[in-house]
Amino acid sequence: MLVVGELINGMYSNIGAAIRERNKEAVQKCALEQIACGAEALDVNCGPASRQPLLDMPWLVETIQEVTDKTLCLDSSKPAVIEEGLKVSRNKTIINSTTADADKLDILVPLANKYKSRLIGITINAKGIPQNKDQRLELAVSIVSACQEKGFPVENLYLDPIVLPVNVAQPQMRDILESISEFKIISEPGAKTIIGLSNVSQGTIFRSLVNRTFLTMAVAYGLDSAILDPKDKELIDTLITAELILNKNIYCDSYLEAYRKK
Amino acid sequence: MLVVGELINGMYSNIGAAIRERNKEAVQKCALEQIACGAEALDVNCGPASRQPLLDMPWLVETIQEVTDKTLCLDSSKPAVIEEGLKVSRNKTIINSTTADADKLDILVPLANKYKSRLIGITINAKGIPQNKDQRLELAVSIVSACQEKGFPVENLYLDPIVLPVNVAQPQMRDILESISEFKIISEPGAKTIIGLSNVSQGTIFRSLVNRTFLTMAVAYGLDSAILDPKDKELIDTLITAELILNKNIYCDSYLEAYRKK
Repeated sequence: MLVVGELINGMYSNIGAAIRERNKEAVQKCALEQIACGAEALDVNCGPASRQPLLDMPWLVETIQEVTDKTLCLDSSKPAVIEEGLKVSRNKTIINSTTADADKLDILVPLANKYKSRLIGITINAKGIPQNKDQRLELAVSIVSACQEKGFPVENLYLDPIVLPVNVAQPQMRDILESISEFKIISEPGAKTIIGLSNVSQGTIFRSLVNRTFLTMAVAYGLDSAILDPKDKELIDTLITAELILNKNIYCDSYLEAYRKK
Repeated sequence: MLVVGELINGMYSNIGAAIRERNKEAVQKCALEQIACGAEALDVNCGPASRQPLLDMPWLVETIQEVTDKTLCLDSSKPAVIEEGLKVSRNKTIINSTTADADKLDILVPLANKYKSRLIGITINAKGIPQNKDQRLELAVSIVSACQEKGFPVENLYLDPIVLPVNVAQPQMRDILESISEFKIISEPGAKTIIGLSNVSQGTIFRSLVNRTFLTMAVAYGLDSAILDPKDKELIDTLITAELILNKNIYCDSYLEAYRKK
């Protein structure tokens, strides 16, 4: 499971301030803390309040890669902002994200090819959020097809079924989980799957409990990657245990510690 | 999800002593505590050290039903011991359990019919524990067939894929989980499914974490019932949340409390 740390995001006040003040130390500390907790990649998002994202994104990338060579997940709804990050990145990258809209795919798939980046494809389009499993699958197929047409290797594509908050979209939770296993068999070789986990608990009281319970189920359905808060120790303990149960790590009495050392 | 409390078992020293000393109060306290934590049924097991299980079982049943009308899950490898419990039970009952062996099925299925009891069928036979999913399915089919032949309603059958400890049978965990969903589609109407949860963490260090992570996955695979320790609060919180995610209870901010009050 590729764990992508979500905490370098301008919507968090400490990172928002660090971006405005060009405070490298605060961003680098946040990067290293997440890696120490088990993150193997870092999401990088200037945040909605950024007034100069075309400058903020490359500054963040350069700041982070001074202290780590972990994969950077360049997160923006604006392709131009993502490209400014790609231009300066020496680390491996993941583009976060394209939708299933043709105009987005026409820009972002070639961008992923040009910079040899992996790519997240969210099963959403201009019509809005899918309301069921079939709509998710249809959007996923169109993303996979676009990648195949444009010569992008599908095994470097991460399909995201778009996780909704359980308190507003309870009837869709099972569809979202089942989409994870369905997405993987659209093509051969198959695309990978990813979720933005924290959204499932947005607005709920027991956020960590909801997050780790949903993540466990998603792992059972074959999830390959999640963007999450790696500093939530109980969440990571649960994730390690879920992967243990599915025989992805070998059991030993100190398996939690052993996994973290790895 | 039918939660069956596992704590009235002579293998636990407090219950073992209570049985020997005919200490009703200790057994009744254990029954009421489990119910207060969310158990809707209670496993009743004299324990391996019982010298007179034919007397201990009916004493336990009579003791427990003085304080609750919850379902009793009469747990013994000896059909005669189970029948002594059935004879005196005024509460609903579940026979725990038959194997897939013909000589067991020939006694226990008619016993379930005679006493209008539900029945747990464990997918094991005299040859031993199944080594994979196909062997589990084969044994499950033979249990379902025996029930159909003997006129026992399959919807009152709980099939148990036999949960093994993760530290000795790691490669079988996914098979066990997948068996849960496969068992349910053997017949129409389908049998229900049950697991003895605590076995998954036998001999491991982080028992509660392993138990609740496995249970979450089993719920995702459609599990109907589990024999477990209802006094493990984190386990029950996780179970309630897993069922919430699968839309089996309606979300409210105080859903944990709301479920427990129900």
